[in-house]
Amino acid sequence: MARTILVFGAGKSTSYLLDYILKKSKEENLHLLIGDINPENISTSISSHKNCTVIALDIFNDDERRKAIVSASIVVSMLPPRLHIKIAEGCIHYKKHLVTASYISKEIQKLDNDARKSGLVFMNEIGLDPGIDHMSAMEVIDRIRNQGGKMLLFESFTGGLVAPEHDSNLWNYKFTWNPRNVVLAGQGGAAKFIQEGSYKYIPYQKLFRRTELLNIDGYGSFEVYPNRDSLKYRDAYGLQDVLTLYRGTMRRVGFSKAWQMFVLLGMTDDSYNIENSEGMSYRQFVNLFLPYSPTDSVELKLRHYLKIDQDDIKWGKLLELNLFDETKRIPLKNASPAQMLQYILEDNWTLEADEKDMIVMYHKFGYEIDGKKKQIDANMVVLGENQNYTAMAKTVGLPVAMAALQILNGKIKTPGVQIPIKSEVYRPILSELKQYGINFKEYEVPYLGYNPNSIGS
Amino acid sequence: MARTILVFGAGKSTSYLLDYILKKSKEENLHLLIGDINPENISTSISSHKNCTVIALDIFNDDERRKAIVSASIVVSMLPPRLHIKIAEGCIHYKKHLVTASYISKEIQKLDNDARKSGLVFMNEIGLDPGIDHMSAMEVIDRIRNQGGKMLLFESFTGGLVAPEHDSNLWNYKFTWNPRNVVLAGQGGAAKFIQEGSYKYIPYQKLFRRTELLNIDGYGSFEVYPNRDSLKYRDAYGLQDVLTLYRGTMRRVGFSKAWQMFVLLGMTDDSYNIENSEGMSYRQFVNLFLPYSPTDSVELKLRHYLKIDQDDIKWGKLLELNLFDETKRIPLKNASPAQMLQYILEDNWTLEADEKDMIVMYHKFGYEIDGKKKQIDANMVVLGENQNYTAMAKTVGLPVAMAALQILNGKIKTPGVQIPIKSEVYRPILSELKQYGINFKEYEVPYLGYNPNSIGS
Repeated sequence: MARTILVFGAGKSTSYLLDYILKKSKEENLHLLIGDINPENISTSISSHKNCTVIALDIFNDDERRKAIVSASIVVSMLPPRLHIKIAEGCIHYKKHLVTASYISKEIQKLDNDARKSGLVFMNEIGLDPGIDHMSAMEVIDRIRNQGGKMLLFESFTGGLVAPEHDSNLWNYKFTWNPRNVVLAGQGGAAKFIQEGSYKYIPYQKLFRRTELLNIDGYGSFEVYPNRDSLKYRDAYGLQDVLTLYRGTMRRVGFSKAWQMFVLLGMTDDSYNIENSEGMSYRQFVNLFLPYSPTDSVELKLRHYLKIDQDDIKWGKLLELNLFDETKRIPLKNASPAQMLQYILEDNWTLEADEKDMIVMYHKFGYEIDGKKKQIDANMVVLGENQNYTAMAKTVGLPVAMAALQILNGKIKTPGVQIPIKSEVYRPILSELKQYGINFKEYEVPYLGYNPNSIGS
Repeated sequence: MARTILVFGAGKSTSYLLDYILKKSKEENLHLLIGDINPENISTSISSHKNCTVIALDIFNDDERRKAIVSASIVVSMLPPRLHIKIAEGCIHYKKHLVTASYISKEIQKLDNDARKSGLVFMNEIGLDPGIDHMSAMEVIDRIRNQGGKMLLFESFTGGLVAPEHDSNLWNYKFTWNPRNVVLAGQGGAAKFIQEGSYKYIPYQKLFRRTELLNIDGYGSFEVYPNRDSLKYRDAYGLQDVLTLYRGTMRRVGFSKAWQMFVLLGMTDDSYNIENSEGMSYRQFVNLFLPYSPTDSVELKLRHYLKIDQDDIKWGKLLELNLFDETKRIPLKNASPAQMLQYILEDNWTLEADEKDMIVMYHKFGYEIDGKKKQIDANMVVLGENQNYTAMAKTVGLPVAMAALQILNGKIKTPGVQIPIKSEVYRPILSELKQYGINFKEYEVPYLGYNPNSIGS
């Protein structure tokens, strides 16, 4: 009898995940069971496959959910993170392994003991970021340690961008994932990291002005702004004594400096609503954040307020978004500034059907071995194929699918709630990912410690 | 038998309040009952007065609190706002009037019906700001309306500053009230106001760069940064149709522009703690917010980061605070950046025993009458006498004391939870305040509407 892989949630990001399972279904004797609230959205190439069953399933319906879990050999949840817990509890009860690409929540973490007792693998954070970042970093860190090296520096950056051939706007950016997360990025507290043994803190109002520059052979220059908590995986990675620990988000050079205009204006604020937002023109929206004048133009007020020179390309970036247009209107009722800005950006930054996305990841590993300081830089670039087969869907979905199969086949077997930092996990998966063009290029570079010359300001 | 005025909390700000009651005690047949958790801190000139009784009282001790309230003819609470509710409930139960200088909380507001039913006056917000601002504004607004005028513009500003004769530092500022409120000022959401019919919003990151300039005859120039919610009293003042509504905080010119350095560095953040704060030098504290460098000085890094020119007086303001001192240390454990900054500022901005404070208040009233647009500006300056008899204690304490006596004498009698916006309240109190040197000067000025030329940037 075929072994059933149950996948909850077959949204846009699951194309590669579902294809992988179906492609392996014959040789591995698999049946794919998809539970989704809107099964009609699943493409017929998937749903009509002979080894696939699709059921309409409301995750809040206890009977439906339980019945599906009981029938499975292993469960994958691609639903929004807050919905995982009911599935995870079902997996404990009916003794099924579980795979997700999401951060471990406190509720999920609490199931660790029960999972261990029953020998269940609860694998989380096995998508792109988190996921491929964990695996690719630990592969190098373990290698350095096995050679007798001592880690001094670890920096790690990821970005979801547009492929060079469709990189056609002044921001060098289009939305390839959740636009709301992009608009709210960096809010909620100061960014915290370590540079050469010193704790450093950056408030939101300066976050997008403290970028670091990077280069990837064949792809040009990128910039990085710091994530909120660079220290999150210090213990998990065993980097308690490391001198520099820094994680960030990658953008094309100049994006952050221009984004800072929105921050200073107050357009990224999601904490209050504009009562008369519905039908407001883009121009009126901008003017909400500028002083009143009976005569001066919105344009000149903004230039003066943010001290934008006549020849600054930042200005072109605002014009490209039609920010001063009196006829373009925002249809949102009682919306926050962040929601209104998101609307304007989506109007401009939406990937067309024939456009491709690009995932970039960059790690720096500084270490000391035999009294010498060395550094390895590693980077990965993945390009999307089209609107459905994006680089994002590929890098998130394939590791999840591979982990599910490895667990099912008993290759990954250490039980408990975990993230993919053990060689048992990352070794086979990184190896298989290479067959799909997901691989890192490594370079030995001089160890400079944290190089202050590369800090923008 | 004497009528007992019960005052909960005899802290530093109550000198004028207590003196006023005792001075009136003979002619008005009053007895002053003070309930305080630390009665030993009350000066003997008060406690030894024949018409005064001081009791040690823990506000959380139900018996002690009730017994005191039962014995009173009227109750005044000068305790921190969160402690008012237990007193207010006692006042409802034992049918006593209540006076506080604090903002009306939701809990207090809920007692409105009960207070009305029992004919009790629950007078709140009758200190300085809120208090004298309400009364002085409504006195002019009502006068304009009684003459047939229609309000077009209302702006109102208050500041607690240092008296000109002791205004001896580059910031032109010393703490005369709660330093923590000064450090956290402007945080927690965008400032919102109306200019010429348009809603305007300013985020924290720009708040201290959107100042307006004011002049007070004989006292020179001041600046104003906007309060968080200028629209708070729109309904209470009957200003629903006004074109411009703006409230703010007054500082000496240049303060806000320099304060913005702390905002941009992230030093006013109270949302996280610095683990190794204890014993950190002022210089190390500054360096937390600057990029790492093995060679560049903290000074040059900061100048570059905030683009501070060689000859900018802002730099002198930082030096004056000893911000780059390696030997001065912060003794606070696990403190937030805001707490650490407060420590450094208190080290520099504490009023000496012989130094005097100053309260400034400024209102602008624009209106239309007989087809003509007019404007009245009104301002008040009050100087302190010494460390105990401050302008702050005077302007907060005297209106409270006067209101208590007026209520006791049945002159203020409209029952319910209220603020001092009715002529029954503001007329006698403003009149009596004049005898104590607390009065407004009014000027007729041309009505310019909201004048864009006065906006700093």
